[in-house]
Amino acid sequence: MNGRVVNVGLCGFGVVGQGVVDHLERKREMLRDQLGVEVVVARVAVRNPSKSRDIAIDVARVTDDALSVAVDPELDIVCELMGGTDKAREVTLEALKAGKIVVTANKALLCDHGKELLAVAQEFGGHLLFEASVAGGIPVIKAIREGLVVNEFSSIRGILNGTCNYILTRMTNEGASYQDILVEAKELGYAEADESLDVDGIDAAHKAVVLAYLAYGKWVDFDAVRLQGIKEVRQEDIRYAKDNGYSVKLIAMVDREREGSALRVSVLPTLMPKETPLGSVDGVFNAVSIQGDVVGETVYIGPGAGRDATASAVISDVVDAVKLLILGGPEGRFPFLDPAPRNGKRIEVARADEIESRYYVRLVVRDQPGVMAEIASILASHSVSLASVNQKEVGEDAERVSLIITTHATTEAAVSEAVAELGELAAVEERPFLMPIGDAS
Amino acid sequence: MNGRVVNVGLCGFGVVGQGVVDHLERKREMLRDQLGVEVVVARVAVRNPSKSRDIAIDVARVTDDALSVAVDPELDIVCELMGGTDKAREVTLEALKAGKIVVTANKALLCDHGKELLAVAQEFGGHLLFEASVAGGIPVIKAIREGLVVNEFSSIRGILNGTCNYILTRMTNEGASYQDILVEAKELGYAEADESLDVDGIDAAHKAVVLAYLAYGKWVDFDAVRLQGIKEVRQEDIRYAKDNGYSVKLIAMVDREREGSALRVSVLPTLMPKETPLGSVDGVFNAVSIQGDVVGETVYIGPGAGRDATASAVISDVVDAVKLLILGGPEGRFPFLDPAPRNGKRIEVARADEIESRYYVRLVVRDQPGVMAEIASILASHSVSLASVNQKEVGEDAERVSLIITTHATTEAAVSEAVAELGELAAVEERPFLMPIGDAS
Repeated sequence: MNGRVVNVGLCGFGVVGQGVVDHLERKREMLRDQLGVEVVVARVAVRNPSKSRDIAIDVARVTDDALSVAVDPELDIVCELMGGTDKAREVTLEALKAGKIVVTANKALLCDHGKELLAVAQEFGGHLLFEASVAGGIPVIKAIREGLVVNEFSSIRGILNGTCNYILTRMTNEGASYQDILVEAKELGYAEADESLDVDGIDAAHKAVVLAYLAYGKWVDFDAVRLQGIKEVRQEDIRYAKDNGYSVKLIAMVDREREGSALRVSVLPTLMPKETPLGSVDGVFNAVSIQGDVVGETVYIGPGAGRDATASAVISDVVDAVKLLILGGPEGRFPFLDPAPRNGKRIEVARADEIESRYYVRLVVRDQPGVMAEIASILASHSVSLASVNQKEVGEDAERVSLIITTHATTEAAVSEAVAELGELAAVEERPFLMPIGDAS
Repeated sequence: MNGRVVNVGLCGFGVVGQGVVDHLERKREMLRDQLGVEVVVARVAVRNPSKSRDIAIDVARVTDDALSVAVDPELDIVCELMGGTDKAREVTLEALKAGKIVVTANKALLCDHGKELLAVAQEFGGHLLFEASVAGGIPVIKAIREGLVVNEFSSIRGILNGTCNYILTRMTNEGASYQDILVEAKELGYAEADESLDVDGIDAAHKAVVLAYLAYGKWVDFDAVRLQGIKEVRQEDIRYAKDNGYSVKLIAMVDREREGSALRVSVLPTLMPKETPLGSVDGVFNAVSIQGDVVGETVYIGPGAGRDATASAVISDVVDAVKLLILGGPEGRFPFLDPAPRNGKRIEVARADEIESRYYVRLVVRDQPGVMAEIASILASHSVSLASVNQKEVGEDAERVSLIITTHATTEAAVSEAVAELGELAAVEERPFLMPIGDAS
């Protein structure tokens, strides 16, 4: 490292990139006091250099060629803030091959290519840091990698998508439908024009895959994540939750039942007990609950997205990168530290249907004699044991009722098969809706 | 560093020391996989080497001379886990002067001697790490120092003493008195035989001083902390809280009203809104809420004490120390990084009476004509504005009533003077009890 300046290159200058430049500039003196070096954004790659932006940058530092930033020998650290996975992968690979420390906030990139990227980082003496990829401004990746380093984890559960939590919270507080809240959320900027990445649970699943890697050292295929979004959540479900001490939350879960058992990753609408931290975190906030075998449960709550929260996390990685460069001595070389040394190679990924839980099932049925007997007998034939049944009229049609059933603990395989069979019944008028019921601890 | 082994010395082998040895041993292979070196507890200093313990250690590694461990040239890292401040200071100073990285869980030591110890660490090329000193197993010091590194902090509030939170929670759930719960808490091991360090708020104040240093770079004198414990909290206060959507919590607070204003540190029973994270964290758990200027609010919840949670934090520091040794290269030298670079030298410490808040005042008075008028006029003469007054009978004596008054925002100076004057009134039968009312955000 050449003395007093660490040069950072940015690939991508959207909302987050502008936040990073803004806050690095504002806190330049504070960071220099701490680090003894000047952190300078020396080059920025943008898609359209002529577009006007809130944060102005010197035109001499701007290029539209992200790859030239990735391999620029003047740069020590490269931040990949472009989004997407194709170009982002190429840029990240080139930067790592050039021995850079790469900082990314891109969970889709990590989910799809994390294994390859970390292998290349290790091979070429670089590093890949990604604090901002999960739970935004909450330093939960640092907690798992460093603060809880001696722990092995039985489970990590999180509210990892602020848009979904915002919609579910407003559905709960206002009694409005998913569709009505979604429309407003878009108008207010809390949901994207194309909302599917959020509301279908895909974004949360990307993050769950990253958490699974950190906790278990295993990259789980996106396709192996048991995934359901929040589109099918109705006011009946929200009301049942409220009346019974729960909240409906989109919960990402990474867990192993016990040492030696398979790893399970899921993102599902879930009934969370209201008094638990995850059950009571509302609005756009994210929350992560981590069960460590030494420390017990720790919980982390905060803003999971947004320009400033994400910039806070990206900059924490930049500062860690600067420390690695300082500590690495004059050649700037330092050993690669596996971010997830927890012997993941030996861990199997579970079939999703092995997940065991209590379940909530909502059926809309014709209220006619014998229906309940049919339903009960189908559940029994799959060894699914009933815990409660509630019947409510739906709208103005007195003959259509919604049946809310809760089960005792059972496997998802059993309950899914039973529910599929229930869906075939002539008296069942809509696709049944199923969600797990979370435990208090 | 000599290749494949990092030798750790322990000074103190009580509950936490034994936990550290136990978990380092259990996770030896996992840590070796990650770090590429073997972390070995090579020497242990105990007060009484012949005492039998749950965790056995090789007698050849044991000494009763902690200073010999501190300066042992074979050791790279020294953990000070003795407690107390005199001998602990001497041992820590000697180890730092010998260039060691010292890990401590000792908040009293840091509060009294942190400034001196960090200066010596810097002078002799050592480091002082203290994750376990605040909030036990929750990696909140790492969050402030690293995860939120670009932030400046307007406030940090925390439940930092598990014993107090346990007692207040049981008083809330069971309606029992402070004294009754304390007796049981001692029997169950949740309170020490001498409880004063906990219930008088001293332990929480030590931790608040450490947080104030981390957030503002300023070592605040213990005597400048506005400090009150939980001994005077009564069922009347708990009931008022429950009836009005609050919990009574012992809240440590470190804050500056705005950039440029003075730093205030307090530990006080406080009415916290029940729906906030701090208002809903019950039992022995700790919680810390941090307001950062870039990220916004992040909250950290978990076990604040106990053998295993504390060992988890101590070991995270040991691992960070090992990384510094690895990265430091063959001579094991690395630059000292100021843990609190936030320009503390320019920050003034506020007089405690400048703290501004809404307040809760409980008075026990003779129920006779004119009392309320006297009280109201005294409050008015100090410009303290009433928000509400509630009167309840106390026990079986119909003439003794408890008056619960809440105020609009006022300075502690004004309300304290008013309350002192109220205490002088003939009709006021007990020392008035005062606590601030926390805001929802």
